[in-house]
Amino acid sequence: MAALRRRNPPVPGAPDEFALIAELFAPLSASYPGALSLTDDAALMDVPSGRQLVLTMDSMVAGVHFFADDPPDLIARKLIRVNLSDLAAKGAQPFAIMLSAAFPHATDGVWLRRFAQGLAEDCRTFAIALIGGDTVATPGPLTLTLTAFGQVPQGRALLRSGAVAGDQIWLSGSLGDSALGLVARQGGLPHLSTSCRDHLIARYLLPEPRVTIGPGLIGLAHAGMDVSDGLIQDVGHMARQSGLAAEIRVDLLPLSPPAQTTLAADNSCLATILGGGDDYEVLFTAPQSEAGAIQRLAAHTGIALTVIGTMGAGQGVRVVDRDGNAVAVAHKGWRHFTDAGEEQWSG
Amino acid sequence: MAALRRRNPPVPGAPDEFALIAELFAPLSASYPGALSLTDDAALMDVPSGRQLVLTMDSMVAGVHFFADDPPDLIARKLIRVNLSDLAAKGAQPFAIMLSAAFPHATDGVWLRRFAQGLAEDCRTFAIALIGGDTVATPGPLTLTLTAFGQVPQGRALLRSGAVAGDQIWLSGSLGDSALGLVARQGGLPHLSTSCRDHLIARYLLPEPRVTIGPGLIGLAHAGMDVSDGLIQDVGHMARQSGLAAEIRVDLLPLSPPAQTTLAADNSCLATILGGGDDYEVLFTAPQSEAGAIQRLAAHTGIALTVIGTMGAGQGVRVVDRDGNAVAVAHKGWRHFTDAGEEQWSG
Repeated sequence: MAALRRRNPPVPGAPDEFALIAELFAPLSASYPGALSLTDDAALMDVPSGRQLVLTMDSMVAGVHFFADDPPDLIARKLIRVNLSDLAAKGAQPFAIMLSAAFPHATDGVWLRRFAQGLAEDCRTFAIALIGGDTVATPGPLTLTLTAFGQVPQGRALLRSGAVAGDQIWLSGSLGDSALGLVARQGGLPHLSTSCRDHLIARYLLPEPRVTIGPGLIGLAHAGMDVSDGLIQDVGHMARQSGLAAEIRVDLLPLSPPAQTTLAADNSCLATILGGGDDYEVLFTAPQSEAGAIQRLAAHTGIALTVIGTMGAGQGVRVVDRDGNAVAVAHKGWRHFTDAGEEQWSG
Repeated sequence: MAALRRRNPPVPGAPDEFALIAELFAPLSASYPGALSLTDDAALMDVPSGRQLVLTMDSMVAGVHFFADDPPDLIARKLIRVNLSDLAAKGAQPFAIMLSAAFPHATDGVWLRRFAQGLAEDCRTFAIALIGGDTVATPGPLTLTLTAFGQVPQGRALLRSGAVAGDQIWLSGSLGDSALGLVARQGGLPHLSTSCRDHLIARYLLPEPRVTIGPGLIGLAHAGMDVSDGLIQDVGHMARQSGLAAEIRVDLLPLSPPAQTTLAADNSCLATILGGGDDYEVLFTAPQSEAGAIQRLAAHTGIALTVIGTMGAGQGVRVVDRDGNAVAVAHKGWRHFTDAGEEQWSG
């Protein structure tokens, strides 16, 4: 067909679903003329004067980033949201996506329709268009890659490197729900009520990219990124890129009621909350003088924004209690730091 | 690390190669400030006034689009070239790529270094920068996705839909080498000399995107696309998108000496040449009045440009001999048409 096209020899006996894909995906391009209705090899994009593109690209693999039997519409929506979260954290307004999907041979029309329904729903929710991509068959697991396009006023994007000593460190929403949801999804946290488990699992399956927060932070925040690899690791990235040290106050972390319940029952869950990842919240720093404006943004959007620490001279990340004493956090469940071996978590 | 970042839990016992990836890939971003040295979650892109972005995205899966034991540097370079071919056929000048790679757990440092060397070599060759992407681990086959960025003068891109009745149909380079190279790579064509086989296999492993042809066609050509799915299928796409019929003269097809030799020995190879795909040549149409300018472009670039047929009223693709008689071509080796079932090859 096209930008989303077939480049595979047919598999004898396999259902030929690629025509169906064209039929299902083309409507998602309708609002964007440069998508050429997904009938060409490429898409065209105009960028208004004074605006700068912000680009991100994330892949998800079945069995690694999601379960192969997760609902197809939620897989599609998570894929979109993971990418939009990156754009939001840069202060960018999303407007387009490109999708490349490697579908296992056994993928059937029912699954594809539900997947496309999920894409369509979030294209509507976030006012974005599918402007191109590729579909191929794979003998391996479902592998999805999205490139997402946003815009910021020229030169105003929030970077990891922009934090200034003395900045307050802020976090949107609540922390750890998704990582705990993954534990619950795998049969853990049996003591939790069904409604608490459902809340956490829903947060794991369907992140909420903070698209209304990001653009509102331009002019207020110095630095921004999303929390996807775990708070401590991501704060570490920001501190390192800004040439600073970060101190995180564990007592200030915004936790949902289910996360609070979980932590109260088992203090070792703190490691999962701090390091589990997949939060897709916006982590940003701002001077104390903007705290009032930031709280007004929170009130306006209905999304909690919470000060969780401060940036200062030095390096590394230190997790402390309200009295400034270092908090020992078990490394269980954490991801190993790999960034050129430079970064150490010093909590 | 970043735009190219890790979002996988470590695999116990697996070598942790992600730090190496950061080390190997970051230098490829050096020429593009908006890549932020691959240390952020996103890349920034400015588009000059009067220019339009052209975007394409293609995936390649080991065992489907290449052999898992192909040389890693050639896999990387083919990935880049397949995408640049799409841009070239739109008349676009490439300048940046984003890469998402799902690496099998067994991927080792030696392989990664050779893969990165291939990326680096073609980034230099084509003056493009790696500006972001993602790296993940997969339990499945190596799966690579590239998003490539080019620019054209605003509104001047060559589309599939631009052909006009009476246009000559042109093809760059030579046809069928790659498809025959795949046959040779799999042990076929035993009668060919070693040098002929090597030529064909090299064309399969390493396409030549016609980046010097594409931008030169703006103002001369009416429509353009690259030949990746097989000439007849791709001509069919262009004819359908332009609302026209195409007639291809089989005696005019530009064939390399090894392809000529192969065809002379076995006439059934015509189906492979016409339908095998992976040619990555530019297919374009232009009014006869521009034939002289197009020949000068060929002379200037050193790349053959050949008239292979004409566009006219009607629909479908007809393959004829020099006397206008329909040529029967066996469908062996062809890909099944799937585009909404509308398109029929009528050769």
